[in-house]
Amino acid sequence: MVSGPLMSDGNPSTELRLSWRQWVAGLLDPASRRPGARLVRMVNIAFIITGLIGVLLASDAGVIPEEGVLVGGPLAAFMIEYLVRLWIIPDMWAAHGDPAGRLRLRWMLSARGLVDLSGAVLIPVAWIVGVSVANAEMLGVLWVFKLARYSPGLAVLWRVIQLEAEPLIGVLFAFLVVLLCAAVLAYLLEGQAQPAVFGTVSKSLWWTIVTLTTTGYGDVTPVTVPGRMLAGLVMMCGILVFSLWAGILATGFSQEMRRRAFLKTWDLVARVPLFQNVGAAVIADVAQRLRACEVGSGSVVVRRGDIGDCMYFIVSGDIEIQAASDVIFRLKDGDFFGEMALITGTRRRATAVALKSSQLLILDIADFRDLAARHPDLAAAIRSEAERRMGKAHESYE
Amino acid sequence: MVSGPLMSDGNPSTELRLSWRQWVAGLLDPASRRPGARLVRMVNIAFIITGLIGVLLASDAGVIPEEGVLVGGPLAAFMIEYLVRLWIIPDMWAAHGDPAGRLRLRWMLSARGLVDLSGAVLIPVAWIVGVSVANAEMLGVLWVFKLARYSPGLAVLWRVIQLEAEPLIGVLFAFLVVLLCAAVLAYLLEGQAQPAVFGTVSKSLWWTIVTLTTTGYGDVTPVTVPGRMLAGLVMMCGILVFSLWAGILATGFSQEMRRRAFLKTWDLVARVPLFQNVGAAVIADVAQRLRACEVGSGSVVVRRGDIGDCMYFIVSGDIEIQAASDVIFRLKDGDFFGEMALITGTRRRATAVALKSSQLLILDIADFRDLAARHPDLAAAIRSEAERRMGKAHESYE
Amino acid sequence: MVSGPLMSDGNPSTELRLSWRQWVAGLLDPASRRPGARLVRMVNIAFIITGLIGVLLASDAGVIPEEGVLVGGPLAAFMIEYLVRLWIIPDMWAAHGDPAGRLRLRWMLSARGLVDLSGAVLIPVAWIVGVSVANAEMLGVLWVFKLARYSPGLAVLWRVIQLEAEPLIGVLFAFLVVLLCAAVLAYLLEGQAQPAVFGTVSKSLWWTIVTLTTTGYGDVTPVTVPGRMLAGLVMMCGILVFSLWAGILATGFSQEMRRRAFLKTWDLVARVPLFQNVGAAVIADVAQRLRACEVGSGSVVVRRGDIGDCMYFIVSGDIEIQAASDVIFRLKDGDFFGEMALITGTRRRATAVALKSSQLLILDIADFRDLAARHPDLAAAIRSEAERRMGKAHESYE
Amino acid sequence: MVSGPLMSDGNPSTELRLSWRQWVAGLLDPASRRPGARLVRMVNIAFIITGLIGVLLASDAGVIPEEGVLVGGPLAAFMIEYLVRLWIIPDMWAAHGDPAGRLRLRWMLSARGLVDLSGAVLIPVAWIVGVSVANAEMLGVLWVFKLARYSPGLAVLWRVIQLEAEPLIGVLFAFLVVLLCAAVLAYLLEGQAQPAVFGTVSKSLWWTIVTLTTTGYGDVTPVTVPGRMLAGLVMMCGILVFSLWAGILATGFSQEMRRRAFLKTWDLVARVPLFQNVGAAVIADVAQRLRACEVGSGSVVVRRGDIGDCMYFIVSGDIEIQAASDVIFRLKDGDFFGEMALITGTRRRATAVALKSSQLLILDIADFRDLAARHPDLAAAIRSEAERRMGKAHESYE
Repeated sequence: MVSGPLMSDGNPSTELRLSWRQWVAGLLDPASRRPGARLVRMVNIAFIITGLIGVLLASDAGVIPEEGVLVGGPLAAFMIEYLVRLWIIPDMWAAHGDPAGRLRLRWMLSARGLVDLSGAVLIPVAWIVGVSVANAEMLGVLWVFKLARYSPGLAVLWRVIQLEAEPLIGVLFAFLVVLLCAAVLAYLLEGQAQPAVFGTVSKSLWWTIVTLTTTGYGDVTPVTVPGRMLAGLVMMCGILVFSLWAGILATGFSQEMRRRAFLKTWDLVARVPLFQNVGAAVIADVAQRLRACEVGSGSVVVRRGDIGDCMYFIVSGDIEIQAASDVIFRLKDGDFFGEMALITGTRRRATAVALKSSQLLILDIADFRDLAARHPDLAAAIRSEAERRMGKAHESYE
Repeated sequence: MVSGPLMSDGNPSTELRLSWRQWVAGLLDPASRRPGARLVRMVNIAFIITGLIGVLLASDAGVIPEEGVLVGGPLAAFMIEYLVRLWIIPDMWAAHGDPAGRLRLRWMLSARGLVDLSGAVLIPVAWIVGVSVANAEMLGVLWVFKLARYSPGLAVLWRVIQLEAEPLIGVLFAFLVVLLCAAVLAYLLEGQAQPAVFGTVSKSLWWTIVTLTTTGYGDVTPVTVPGRMLAGLVMMCGILVFSLWAGILATGFSQEMRRRAFLKTWDLVARVPLFQNVGAAVIADVAQRLRACEVGSGSVVVRRGDIGDCMYFIVSGDIEIQAASDVIFRLKDGDFFGEMALITGTRRRATAVALKSSQLLILDIADFRDLAARHPDLAAAIRSEAERRMGKAHESYE
Repeated sequence: MVSGPLMSDGNPSTELRLSWRQWVAGLLDPASRRPGARLVRMVNIAFIITGLIGVLLASDAGVIPEEGVLVGGPLAAFMIEYLVRLWIIPDMWAAHGDPAGRLRLRWMLSARGLVDLSGAVLIPVAWIVGVSVANAEMLGVLWVFKLARYSPGLAVLWRVIQLEAEPLIGVLFAFLVVLLCAAVLAYLLEGQAQPAVFGTVSKSLWWTIVTLTTTGYGDVTPVTVPGRMLAGLVMMCGILVFSLWAGILATGFSQEMRRRAFLKTWDLVARVPLFQNVGAAVIADVAQRLRACEVGSGSVVVRRGDIGDCMYFIVSGDIEIQAASDVIFRLKDGDFFGEMALITGTRRRATAVALKSSQLLILDIADFRDLAARHPDLAAAIRSEAERRMGKAHESYE
Repeated sequence: MVSGPLMSDGNPSTELRLSWRQWVAGLLDPASRRPGARLVRMVNIAFIITGLIGVLLASDAGVIPEEGVLVGGPLAAFMIEYLVRLWIIPDMWAAHGDPAGRLRLRWMLSARGLVDLSGAVLIPVAWIVGVSVANAEMLGVLWVFKLARYSPGLAVLWRVIQLEAEPLIGVLFAFLVVLLCAAVLAYLLEGQAQPAVFGTVSKSLWWTIVTLTTTGYGDVTPVTVPGRMLAGLVMMCGILVFSLWAGILATGFSQEMRRRAFLKTWDLVARVPLFQNVGAAVIADVAQRLRACEVGSGSVVVRRGDIGDCMYFIVSGDIEIQAASDVIFRLKDGDFFGEMALITGTRRRATAVALKSSQLLILDIADFRDLAARHPDLAAAIRSEAERRMGKAHESYE
């Protein structure tokens, strides 16, 4: 392994020497929170947006001079990016345990690899093949897919569409049935009156789809009474069909989000000692109600005098509690705070400030009460732990 | 403390002397139910609506004379309001325990403080800077945000959008992808046929967004067959994208509303003695099914002969029960009524009238039956309490 | 009491002599299943529809002669109907126990009473006041509200809108905020370019609402680049706002429908002896899964050879089971059938025909399996009851 | 029984001689997975699509010559198909046990029989009756309904619409109320200003429906201020009404899909030995969380190094596990795999490849954790079974 940069978290015993390839792989990891990785992400996103603006302006005659840079710059960057990603992929996918060559091939054929490849080579290829410069640059619009790497919400959407594919296709089929029948009827009812736009079935198909989606351009409208009755029916069918679509997606999305949130909190709940004393069934119940959040260094989590509507568990971080009587103590990983306002129903009696970037789990007051009622042992544990911690805090400050 | 007005609830022992600042703070409390506070709210809302009408008419040449007053009047009122609010904020936020100056600064920098400030000073500043009177008055449209203080539903909406931000942005990104790709394709497919409206990508972007949102102005429509096929696809993508949006918001909204309703009823349930005899788990179950409502003085809550579809718990108030045989008795805080019709399945046998403004908890018949089946002890408690109360009523009237 | 018509259900001992007023009240009861009441309903609906068609055609010059009858006929009928309803209301609301005069007054002031009154007197009053005949007849459109009496679904919708009023108003407020701000911005951005349609704020309000609801007439469209950007934003806000509306209504509707279905089945479950042997908690669980339905005389409920996807409980009625081996036996109120296919997973082994109009409760196979797994005693009860009944049937046929 | 083709699954003892009719019936079974049946389905679908394209082009003058074949070919095929289906139906519906003639009659009168009949005879009948060739061919659009046989999602949609019929009709009624009132108001407000399009109520009905569905053609728009206010109100009512529709369908659809998925997995769960050791209540819980899926021969189910987000149960099939240390073993019906990554939280340590087309049940990691917490016995069973299997595998490979 080549001698590379030093990776340190302030503790010399855990320092480890990375190869340069590992160091670059760390910079390109989309989930990394290192400042360097954040910078790389921002530069990458800036290139993509610049490129897209360039593509949008490419066809406007007056702004060509600048646009050459706007498209060409990002293009060059993406070519380099592609090579770098190909180089580092064995370190990114190290867990797979396959040889580097095979991992590189797999990445090249993966969705993200193909998006990066097409973003890097399609425009030059189009130029070589002889497409005009302006038209070749249109291919840069594919760069928008590179943004998908940074949008976690999009992955959820994609999965929901996959899971609900069958009913969605069923609705599409219903759409097709209505579309074809309405187009034929429109041709029969309006064909005589407006031969220019309803004269053939394929012509009347245009009106039908514009009406069925309730877009209603108004370039073609029926004029006969039966034609207008058909139009009213088609509009209502359109709304019915797309209500079904909305209903399917709403259902699927709700389930998927609940599943994701559960997974996220489950991993974090395990790190809070309090929950290790209660049964597994309680943990599963708790994990479904907690909400993960992250607070930056220096941010005020709760403020004295505010209404307390939730309590916090510290997964990792450092929180300073500034109580009313100027008593200040610090909470670390696994501690919790903010429970007093929930138990007593009073306003916050202390201000909590994050001393460094911290990961918290939030338990809403409604869920706290419901949980406390259903699992009295958990409520008791929170109460006794709070008393113990308060006693300890008093000891150390008295 | 300066000697101020007397605050009385009819019981001399609880009278307390308020400072004038506290008295004004009470008048401006948006949650207060005092007649004075109601009046202040109504006057404030009237000023906002007057001002907004003034802004709407400000640009119409014919109605300028009156509009000067319509905009100027509210403007003056909002300036005074801002100073008053700044003066009283230490009493409103007394629970925070911070010094008055710091509380005033925090309020000035809070969302509501900034809305009030911009409503009070932006128009004069624009005048001073040299903007024309008519255009400066356009800034009065920001007064609409002052209404947010009185709309509890809006706070829920805002929180839902915050909680669901990640998937909403995911959908927005999907929207962006479709928008850009469709704009480029429309330019390529229709650019030759209609150079005036599809001649550049930025021009065809207009058609794309109008179609993707299914608005369909019809000022630009594709004329070629491939262009129309693209249009059909874009319309369907638009509906798909916005179905996802609807689904996300529906899911989030449903959860938030359930949480809010639970919190509201939980606080009230604690005041009903009946529920203090049952376990905490039952209370959590009950609180999720009760619905809070308020009835004005003199209003008829249930009417003899009506079908009984719910029972009522009195959180606070005074209800007169007028039974069939002219027996009249009164119920106070913590009592309940209307349970007989649910137990026996008969129609209401008595009329219940609120003698003063009362806060009630409503338990629907469906939830009553479900609760009674799941928690036989609760059903038994309701029955025995009803019998006890009925017996007592008979004693006192016989 | 005046001697009236005889009401009989075939059993002379339960015959009772009704007053004529009671007999007419029975005919007008919207929930009654007597053939006479059905006929009265159909005639009433026919009058309403005739009247509405008359109103629609009233303004068409060519068809006046007939329309005079189309509007006048129903009008006369509704006048008579109003008087009849006023006469019989004491019998309809007999359970209220109030004197007849007071009940009549209450009905006159109720929503339905006012609808009936306005349908009967508004047109003549308009004639007398001097409104032209054609315009007076327009008031007949209010007759459409008379149909509400026969639409149970509408009552649910109305209740959902009432229950969800607060968030719906919150959305309406958000709508107002977007509408006003967008109108002012449109005026500032497009006012110079198109003074005819964006020249004042009140003018640009028209474009804003047409765009915000994604209706998009296209009579007014922005032409400047900032104006079009605003338009894109307004369209997206419109979809966001109305997605919230859809989400609120979907949530509320779902809860209300579940509650209604539970109430309906609960009342019927009590009549099935099988469920009287199991605990109350099981019944509450069962009632939430059953679905009520009604089958007409002679209709085939299950057919031999079909796939069995549900079982049936007879609330009231008479079902003939035609088994494979020509064994025919009859089931009455409280019996159940169709359970064999669910237990064994085979196809239906017998055909079931309703001998008279019967009320059934349907238990879906998915719910049957879930219930059987959760409540083994219920599954055992169904099995033993089935065996007992089968044995008895064999006895009587052998 | 006539001597027919040999049906074999490779095991001579289960070979059985089918009649030719049974063999053809097997080919036409829409749920069959035999290659022959798949081919027949594909040919059938190809004919339908060809026919529909033919119908679309039938009215275009230029392409008549080819279109004669495009419509005529499928028509002939559907005539033959109808006769074949009529011939084989006794074998398809053999479970019904009725005589062949009666089954044929029942099929002819069923929805699918009528669709097939109309697809086969309506066009020739129209020709004979004297309809022009081009118009007669329009009837071919009904062939789209033949596709319904192959769309399982459509059946769900249809059932949801049936189950939710009552509230959907309620919304339709609300739609009618708004439509009529708005049409009359529009006539009164705009009739004078635009007599050509609002001159009668029936004329203004066209504008009303176009606006109420937010289609907004723009061919008719109000010009007076009160007319435009009405328009804004109508647009908002339209969105409200159709939000209700979307809400109803979303609710109903969600319930129906959950029921279907439960039924599908329940049947498969019974074939996994592991679940036979746990209580019925656990099985009902498990069945609601599993998801059925099918993988083709040779496809990679899990890949070494991937993040493990689910485990798999093999209902039927043959899966080869390629562990890291080149240990290869095979799993058969009833086995499960992929549980290690869920238990330990590590990445996949082995690759799983389907050796033949296999039916799997997928248990998501979120559901696995929730299940394991709620049913510790199930988690223990999975763990011990995994250890037992691993031990056995080691034995056989050591």
